[in-house]
Amino acid sequence: MDDAADLAARFNRVRARSRALAAPLSPEDAQVQSMDDCSPAKWHLAHTTWFFERFVLAERDGYTPFDSDFDFLFNSYYQSVGTMHARPHRGLVTRPTLSRVLEYRDAIDARMRERLGRDDLDTHARQVLLLGTHHEQQHQELLLTDIKHAFWCNPLRPAYRDDLPVAAGRDTPVDWIESGERIVEVGAPAWPQASAFAYDNESPRHRVLVPAHALASRPVSNAEYRAFIEDGGYRNAALWMSEGFSRIQRDGWARPLYWDEDLQREFTLGGMRDIDPHAPVCHISYFEADAYARWAGARLPTEFEWESAASGHAVEGHFADDTGGLHPRAATAGRGLRQLFGDVWEWTSSAYMPYPGFRPLPGSLGEYNGKFMCGQWVLRGGSCATPPAHVRASYRNFFYPPDRWQFSGLRLARDLSDRTR
Amino acid sequence: MDDAADLAARFNRVRARSRALAAPLSPEDAQVQSMDDCSPAKWHLAHTTWFFERFVLAERDGYTPFDSDFDFLFNSYYQSVGTMHARPHRGLVTRPTLSRVLEYRDAIDARMRERLGRDDLDTHARQVLLLGTHHEQQHQELLLTDIKHAFWCNPLRPAYRDDLPVAAGRDTPVDWIESGERIVEVGAPAWPQASAFAYDNESPRHRVLVPAHALASRPVSNAEYRAFIEDGGYRNAALWMSEGFSRIQRDGWARPLYWDEDLQREFTLGGMRDIDPHAPVCHISYFEADAYARWAGARLPTEFEWESAASGHAVEGHFADDTGGLHPRAATAGRGLRQLFGDVWEWTSSAYMPYPGFRPLPGSLGEYNGKFMCGQWVLRGGSCATPPAHVRASYRNFFYPPDRWQFSGLRLARDLSDRTR
Amino acid sequence: MDDAADLAARFNRVRARSRALAAPLSPEDAQVQSMDDCSPAKWHLAHTTWFFERFVLAERDGYTPFDSDFDFLFNSYYQSVGTMHARPHRGLVTRPTLSRVLEYRDAIDARMRERLGRDDLDTHARQVLLLGTHHEQQHQELLLTDIKHAFWCNPLRPAYRDDLPVAAGRDTPVDWIESGERIVEVGAPAWPQASAFAYDNESPRHRVLVPAHALASRPVSNAEYRAFIEDGGYRNAALWMSEGFSRIQRDGWARPLYWDEDLQREFTLGGMRDIDPHAPVCHISYFEADAYARWAGARLPTEFEWESAASGHAVEGHFADDTGGLHPRAATAGRGLRQLFGDVWEWTSSAYMPYPGFRPLPGSLGEYNGKFMCGQWVLRGGSCATPPAHVRASYRNFFYPPDRWQFSGLRLARDLSDRTR
Amino acid sequence: MDDAADLAARFNRVRARSRALAAPLSPEDAQVQSMDDCSPAKWHLAHTTWFFERFVLAERDGYTPFDSDFDFLFNSYYQSVGTMHARPHRGLVTRPTLSRVLEYRDAIDARMRERLGRDDLDTHARQVLLLGTHHEQQHQELLLTDIKHAFWCNPLRPAYRDDLPVAAGRDTPVDWIESGERIVEVGAPAWPQASAFAYDNESPRHRVLVPAHALASRPVSNAEYRAFIEDGGYRNAALWMSEGFSRIQRDGWARPLYWDEDLQREFTLGGMRDIDPHAPVCHISYFEADAYARWAGARLPTEFEWESAASGHAVEGHFADDTGGLHPRAATAGRGLRQLFGDVWEWTSSAYMPYPGFRPLPGSLGEYNGKFMCGQWVLRGGSCATPPAHVRASYRNFFYPPDRWQFSGLRLARDLSDRTR
Repeated sequence: MDDAADLAARFNRVRARSRALAAPLSPEDAQVQSMDDCSPAKWHLAHTTWFFERFVLAERDGYTPFDSDFDFLFNSYYQSVGTMHARPHRGLVTRPTLSRVLEYRDAIDARMRERLGRDDLDTHARQVLLLGTHHEQQHQELLLTDIKHAFWCNPLRPAYRDDLPVAAGRDTPVDWIESGERIVEVGAPAWPQASAFAYDNESPRHRVLVPAHALASRPVSNAEYRAFIEDGGYRNAALWMSEGFSRIQRDGWARPLYWDEDLQREFTLGGMRDIDPHAPVCHISYFEADAYARWAGARLPTEFEWESAASGHAVEGHFADDTGGLHPRAATAGRGLRQLFGDVWEWTSSAYMPYPGFRPLPGSLGEYNGKFMCGQWVLRGGSCATPPAHVRASYRNFFYPPDRWQFSGLRLARDLSDRTR
Repeated sequence: MDDAADLAARFNRVRARSRALAAPLSPEDAQVQSMDDCSPAKWHLAHTTWFFERFVLAERDGYTPFDSDFDFLFNSYYQSVGTMHARPHRGLVTRPTLSRVLEYRDAIDARMRERLGRDDLDTHARQVLLLGTHHEQQHQELLLTDIKHAFWCNPLRPAYRDDLPVAAGRDTPVDWIESGERIVEVGAPAWPQASAFAYDNESPRHRVLVPAHALASRPVSNAEYRAFIEDGGYRNAALWMSEGFSRIQRDGWARPLYWDEDLQREFTLGGMRDIDPHAPVCHISYFEADAYARWAGARLPTEFEWESAASGHAVEGHFADDTGGLHPRAATAGRGLRQLFGDVWEWTSSAYMPYPGFRPLPGSLGEYNGKFMCGQWVLRGGSCATPPAHVRASYRNFFYPPDRWQFSGLRLARDLSDRTR
Repeated sequence: MDDAADLAARFNRVRARSRALAAPLSPEDAQVQSMDDCSPAKWHLAHTTWFFERFVLAERDGYTPFDSDFDFLFNSYYQSVGTMHARPHRGLVTRPTLSRVLEYRDAIDARMRERLGRDDLDTHARQVLLLGTHHEQQHQELLLTDIKHAFWCNPLRPAYRDDLPVAAGRDTPVDWIESGERIVEVGAPAWPQASAFAYDNESPRHRVLVPAHALASRPVSNAEYRAFIEDGGYRNAALWMSEGFSRIQRDGWARPLYWDEDLQREFTLGGMRDIDPHAPVCHISYFEADAYARWAGARLPTEFEWESAASGHAVEGHFADDTGGLHPRAATAGRGLRQLFGDVWEWTSSAYMPYPGFRPLPGSLGEYNGKFMCGQWVLRGGSCATPPAHVRASYRNFFYPPDRWQFSGLRLARDLSDRTR
Repeated sequence: MDDAADLAARFNRVRARSRALAAPLSPEDAQVQSMDDCSPAKWHLAHTTWFFERFVLAERDGYTPFDSDFDFLFNSYYQSVGTMHARPHRGLVTRPTLSRVLEYRDAIDARMRERLGRDDLDTHARQVLLLGTHHEQQHQELLLTDIKHAFWCNPLRPAYRDDLPVAAGRDTPVDWIESGERIVEVGAPAWPQASAFAYDNESPRHRVLVPAHALASRPVSNAEYRAFIEDGGYRNAALWMSEGFSRIQRDGWARPLYWDEDLQREFTLGGMRDIDPHAPVCHISYFEADAYARWAGARLPTEFEWESAASGHAVEGHFADDTGGLHPRAATAGRGLRQLFGDVWEWTSSAYMPYPGFRPLPGSLGEYNGKFMCGQWVLRGGSCATPPAHVRASYRNFFYPPDRWQFSGLRLARDLSDRTR
């Protein structure tokens, strides 16, 4: 684990970043919850703070909570800690106000710094603190995707920020990177037994047999996806999972979530903009990614195909840093696999399941991941809204097949087995 | 109609009152919409302003709207004026912010005062302006009932104001005021043909035959209603309309909306408080009012029984004035009918229907009332949240039978026909 | 009341008629329930039998029920008698089979005839028996309207009977029958105190003030209604109650329930047929009747306008007799009010409410009508599916505003007050 | 493939079996659809017939269909063949009657036998015919599970058959059969290229790495499952997938689908019976199977663990043969893995996904399986309602995690990796 100074620096950096992300928001903006899957920005700011208060500070006997109501209001889903406010009603809690929540952040930050300064945290507390910073980074991405959805629900389509840079991309051809059948090691050694941080859902590291296959060198672009739409992809039942086709018919889906009907413009965190044809398509569901792949005569990669390809690459890419623009960008020219990390989360064909021998974290934190391993699909690689240095090759993100409000796209894969049979 | 100075004074008074009502609200408070029936306080402030802009100012050729998006955002239900934002999503519109909406109010007020000052409004515009002030008063009451509901949805149960006075009441016995069968004139002459303002749903004035009956001297009290609960009223199917009994079973209703489970405390605009046993019960649905009356061996009055009784009384009572406390109070001692006006809206047994010969206002304002005359029930008399001088004997309020978030109570009536048959 | 022989004859006639109505149905037909509002034909046959068993036979001590399960299965809504099977699940009860239900009918008929033959029924039992025959006649009409709906849900659109006669009608002009303001007596004296049978909801007979008005001489025809459709009536919000317009938009209503998209053909109990342009329009909701009347510059009559007009007419018309065809027919030529009785139930503008001084029947039978007096609208006059001699001028039928599966049409009315103001 | 005589014999045997299964049903029983997931028995009888008519007989030019309406009514989900009747409304189609559907079966059987007798079916037609017999066997199992659910919805709880034998079982201890990490071949070679029949979802045969693990020698018994209930298993959130815990709370699940509240009796195809404590628990969802396994300190096996264990065993067990009783029976004494086949379908931990290199069947039959590979879980081994000789080691059944109306149980597995790390 990081030594004390590193840990304190990381804590301060992450905490400051959340406030910076909330800075463009009015109290009204920070209040709303545009659908059950989203949370108000104010809630993200408070819940991430509560995580440190509850799981680090309050572990010490005699701790006086900042506000005894907050345990109920800002617990997300830790049933072992107590009852909690129902998620779909988070947007109705106007008090505490945003300003009060920022006071809460300041107060808990001060208490945490005091503990860090005195260096009186035991090993377990230091581990939970580190976990809390990774946890807060996940909520930073959700804060962005949730506010994007909220602004999109406003018929005026306001921008989160007016000063986001726009990068025009170039067309780059797709190469296919082939790989023969082999046994690979995937996953991360279980933390905190191992020193490198990883979530419990990434472990244990284990062996899998990956079949012969080929991976596309870059994600599918907006232009390519538009061709699918114009070819009638959304009307051709043969391309879709049965449940997906029912869903697009029921809800009238005919394009990615934030695209305009004209297929030329899209809603971004910088407001309505022209679609860059060469940038990766995003805000599509698993159903759409899967149907596109079938239309293209390909398939989605498994999470193990993706990880075994990515594990040799540096975790570099277009993340949510200060100059990033908070929108996917076109691939740069080059050879081999590109954009594995950043830009868009890539839907895989893998259902989100426990690895063989999976053990949740002990105690309440065991509720962090394990209980959601049913009905969701794995996405890999991070996006333009993911904090830099947050993801890794073994990182598993997961959402439900119809979810579209994340920066979710796809990369194609192909079987090579046909040749050899 | 009022002369120019009166009209201007009325306009200024009503507009200032809305701002005063919103003063205790944070931007977050003013943002939320706790159920489809409610609207955000910010929306009430904007919509009432839009009413003047759209129906008075914009009638003149060449008018430049304050913001061209507002026609869509702040139209409530006037289909003839154009499309509108869907009501259940009002709570998602964070921009314009509260501060921007207050700017909107200031700007429109200035434009209106300029027109009033120059006295260049024609008769029709002056009539619509007057209607607009009555319209805004209706929204003042809704602003209070809607924010009460929103605060109640917050598990912390915050108060709208901490400084509201509490008045302890005394027990007063119920007398029965009898009346023989007679033909009465009810309703108001149609405005603006007649000079006194009334809504179109109050006219034409017409003759009805009111049967012999008796009216209770005061509304049903909390103590009386508690006896009904404690007698198992909510479990006895024989007391209820079939639809009402289904509803209370489905939603688990067992007491008035804001009462605590202990039947001793209730949520008010001043926070949680002890229930005053002698104050009128309120926040009950038509179903509950009707079931209570049956339990008590009585019935609800018709709207014509109520109006013929009330028409001889001064419109005095406990309304939403500066010292009112925004909560119903116990009846004062005395003889004859009391509390006809103010304290609680009284459910009648009358479905909300057009009067014989009813004609809606011409043009878009014809949508004001007429199209809602289906499935609702008439309430009479105003409440502690109604602006003073807003109601009159012929005033018809209307809500759906299950609605409970208004200050709605009941007064008992009885047939006298049994004696004579 | 009828003397013993009359009562027995009536009982036998009504019971035989139900079986005749069910004769064209296969066991499968008699099983289905096509929506919550409908019941299986088998259930109607059983429930009407249970009514006699439970409320006549089982009143005597020591009675052994035919099958002790039937109390639960075939109670409709009499909470005071015990719990009952949930209405929406009636279509799932395959046992008892139709054949067993017919055995049940035979057995109860035999027991009833034995009691009637011995003439050992007391006055109350004789009254309930009489009520039971009227009750069964109501279910005879529902059996027809429910099976019509079920067959219409079948994409093959089978006919209930292939041998129903078709009658071609002629165009007849509409006259307006005027009436000045007057006090009239409406309703029926309360039965069984009075000797003539009437339901409790028709009493007490009482005085009402009916305003000056005019009534159309016949119901609105299919050709007239088609002109409303072709004039864009279903797209013009100004013609509709707000709730009605929401409903037609939500459910895509653009014509009467059983009309084909081409507006030329309709589904009948005899299968798909050409629409007779001169026959009364039917299978429309209150919302549609009300919108049509507004489009036509008229309004719906009140139930009292209808009753005061009808009370001087013989109860003659086109009912569900052996030669009736079970479909509305065009008016015959003539003067004055026609088709008041039979052909189509006429929506009135009156909400279904208790009359002043209304008292439900004593005991369990008090649940017959009173608890449904909320949210429904009154229809008058009977239809082509109503048993002959079942209705009368004071008869009040009632359904919810969106209901369309009954043979429901309309007759226009007009205010005369405009002339005189 | 089987030679012509074998194929004809198989066809006749399967077809006769469906009729035998429907023999105890009245026309009413065969009509009902108790939930969207179920179909009427009549529909199963007709759809399986339509499968032969449409995909075998109608492939020949000039074929005259038995009834041109049946293509619409009895297509299940083959979008490439044409539109179809909506699944949730199958229970409303009373015509054709059961008797007409049996005529349909006779007619198509005659036509099929005529073709088989003349031996003029080409290779493809013979393949589809064979597929059709397997398809019909699947529907035989559904006919039983669907009618069980329908009868259970009837408050009288009638029995499908009164003559089903009951077998009392004995307690048998659980052994754990261990297996080290190894690469195994799973799946079936693609049919019809390979001669042995298998569904497309079982192929291609491919290699997977199976980790070290242990399998329980028999399924979990009713007694064991009752201990889980009595230990508060349904109230302990820590044992459940988050979605599963929400579901059991929402729907009030506290025991297997057909168990009585007393945990002593259960509904069977033979009516209400005492629960055999030693028989395998069944009618549980994936959520319940998974929670039980966690409570027991174990986990569900993967489908590959199951298949690699089962592939060496004869496909013998307690299936839906003439003496089977149509209810799970206790394991017999013995060593090693028992009851792999028959009695209860065993939930695995494997999401239902395509195998690497999966290719659906060509043409319309490609819709048979592939489009459902999303959101479902794999079950293995067959049940007491599965036709004998229908399943095999590579057979993959699949249902949604909350589904409970199949004969679904579980077998425990354990990781062995802990020892070796």
